Amino acid sequence: MSEIHRASTTAPVNIAVIKYWGKRDPKLNLPTNSSLSVTLSQADLRTHTTASCSPSYPTEDSLLLNGSPQDVSGARTQACFRELRALRKQLEDGNDTLPKLSTFPLKIVSENNFPTAAGLASSAAGFAALVRAIANLYELPSSPTDLSRIARQGSGSACRSLFGGYVGWEQGSAADGSDSTAFQVAPAEHWPNMRAIVLVVSAAKKGVSSTTGMQTTVATSSLFAARANETVPRRMQEMQKAIQDKDFETFAKVTMMDSNSFHATCLDTYPPIFYLNDVSKAAIKIVESINAAAGKTIAAYTFDAGPNAVVYYLEENEKQVAGLFKSILGEKEGWAGQRGQGVTANDEARDKVVVDAAVAVGLLEEGVSRVILTSVGEGPVKTDESLINEKGEPVSSS
Amino acid sequence: MSEIHRASTTAPVNIAVIKYWGKRDPKLNLPTNSSLSVTLSQADLRTHTTASCSPSYPTEDSLLLNGSPQDVSGARTQACFRELRALRKQLEDGNDTLPKLSTFPLKIVSENNFPTAAGLASSAAGFAALVRAIANLYELPSSPTDLSRIARQGSGSACRSLFGGYVGWEQGSAADGSDSTAFQVAPAEHWPNMRAIVLVVSAAKKGVSSTTGMQTTVATSSLFAARANETVPRRMQEMQKAIQDKDFETFAKVTMMDSNSFHATCLDTYPPIFYLNDVSKAAIKIVESINAAAGKTIAAYTFDAGPNAVVYYLEENEKQVAGLFKSILGEKEGWAGQRGQGVTANDEARDKVVVDAAVAVGLLEEGVSRVILTSVGEGPVKTDESLINEKGEPVSSS
Repeated sequence: MSEIHRASTTAPVNIAVIKYWGKRDPKLNLPTNSSLSVTLSQADLRTHTTASCSPSYPTEDSLLLNGSPQDVSGARTQACFRELRALRKQLEDGNDTLPKLSTFPLKIVSENNFPTAAGLASSAAGFAALVRAIANLYELPSSPTDLSRIARQGSGSACRSLFGGYVGWEQGSAADGSDSTAFQVAPAEHWPNMRAIVLVVSAAKKGVSSTTGMQTTVATSSLFAARANETVPRRMQEMQKAIQDKDFETFAKVTMMDSNSFHATCLDTYPPIFYLNDVSKAAIKIVESINAAAGKTIAAYTFDAGPNAVVYYLEENEKQVAGLFKSILGEKEGWAGQRGQGVTANDEARDKVVVDAAVAVGLLEEGVSRVILTSVGEGPVKTDESLINEKGEPVSSS
Repeated sequence: MSEIHRASTTAPVNIAVIKYWGKRDPKLNLPTNSSLSVTLSQADLRTHTTASCSPSYPTEDSLLLNGSPQDVSGARTQACFRELRALRKQLEDGNDTLPKLSTFPLKIVSENNFPTAAGLASSAAGFAALVRAIANLYELPSSPTDLSRIARQGSGSACRSLFGGYVGWEQGSAADGSDSTAFQVAPAEHWPNMRAIVLVVSAAKKGVSSTTGMQTTVATSSLFAARANETVPRRMQEMQKAIQDKDFETFAKVTMMDSNSFHATCLDTYPPIFYLNDVSKAAIKIVESINAAAGKTIAAYTFDAGPNAVVYYLEENEKQVAGLFKSILGEKEGWAGQRGQGVTANDEARDKVVVDAAVAVGLLEEGVSRVILTSVGEGPVKTDESLINEKGEPVSSS
């Protein structure tokens, strides 16, 4: 039997606080503005990927995600494979003793530890894990920055999942995308008490895909240029300073304003794109009410290209934020785990919110299907747990 | 018994196709951008106002609207009274034989022919009627343009209700507002086949008032300046040309884009302002579907500071637009009148829309409480029907 080479990693989801929306080069996934995200803990949300190659594999590269074969012929996946193989080939060309992995077919097996139905953008974790796993397999000396340049071509926001903590993506200006890479603003340890609760909202139907949506926005929104050229550059600076200073009030305000700005340009698209629905708006109202009850900004909402709310807060305000949501949504899936079990509400704050935002509370109860509690977390982690066995066959994770 | 002077007028509602949002001077209601509207037929929507004055009246000016006494001490109403009295005084100063009406207390009685519950912005028709009625009472030689300058100080958009047809409001640049007046782009006869259907959406609660809302937008939205300074000036030109050319496709596209742009700046406000709800979005989806079924743009939605949809269309497309809405909303109030009774649907178009926009059709059925069918119409009309009798007492209209 011929050699089977394997390497595995896990990679995190990230949720942007300054949104990526608009491509200046669709092929290379080069953005019209920089963006910034929080990497979420892989204990709660992660993609686990094993990359493997062997001369004995069928000649076509393959990818199995959650047990289903995926199409790898798309330009984005192909770009990642091509770039990683080229880097491996450089190593092989410089050292005759290395096995010629770059010439072997790839077999990749991937699993998410969260339900696809949650509607979380899984492509960021997916491409980050794919690129990191193949880089491990090929024993590339590439830095996370180098790999972020490759992962970006798979899915723009994937570049930010190569790092843990607080992560920026510099839009860059080079036509070939060489300077459009991710960078760490601060590691998770710098501000470790950042928490997030995801309110999963059941949408009647899938909205416009983000790739199609952002192209239409760039082409038709008359407000978009002001966002990309003026608003976001200013907020990138404000947000990096807020993170350095662990200034939650500024972090929160910029997060909420940027989410609103992004969705405003979607609404200004023609035809308009709506990702927020009445349940999303109820979540906004409740966050406003939580902050009003607290007398300061202790919670920040943000929404990606869908109706799910992500609410950031600090651990010390758990009762007033997660506890408040538990008092409304305690019957929903998601509270059973370690993070959710011990959560309790601050009664006084809850009573204020329930009065102030009664209609919104009802809408949220009706429209949220599950919650996910998580926190800021680390970047990709190498693992020995392989999703491909020694014979090259996929195995399920334990 | 002392003399009682009376004069009456009706005035129309107008619905903007380029929205007024943002004041550069809140006291004078001077806008941050020009706007443009269609004046709607007074057969369907009008305010009827009688202005009266007499030395025998109680010394306080008074206003009765739909039978309820209104506060006239507010700065806006006072500004209108003051300006109109000053103009009368000029006449009196130049002609001794004129009765000194400017010194008499005013008694004003006003009635709307549409339910307040409809949530239609009635202040435009209300202030236009108030100013026109007092101008009639005072026998002022003022032009509608002159009166628009006064009505603007009562309610910004009221200035556009001094004219019929297609009406612009030039933002002006003078600090005293002297050049911020309405003008007629084209009379109703120029393009008489313009129709509108108002879908009255029941809102869970009243949204943010437009005065508060627009001030917050100006203060906090980072996208607002681009709308006011770049987008609207361009669209004002496009819209005037579309009206001159009776080019419905351009009229419709600019109308929809401008409504979206206005609501986008509301969403970009901090905290965000939402006027559109899921029912409003369903109306947008159905208009998109009507246009798709027609293979061209035959319907245009627009939304003011609330969830109600106004859909413009041309008479020749009644079956595909009003007929379509009747097939969905035929059970609702509003179809019994002369305009609604004869409306029928185009079966083929209806079948396409019902399949293409099934979810939206359900939401609309659930969320629309009544419809109003109307058309482009005339400006204020002098009437002999008085809401105040010869003794100076309010009487109900016949």
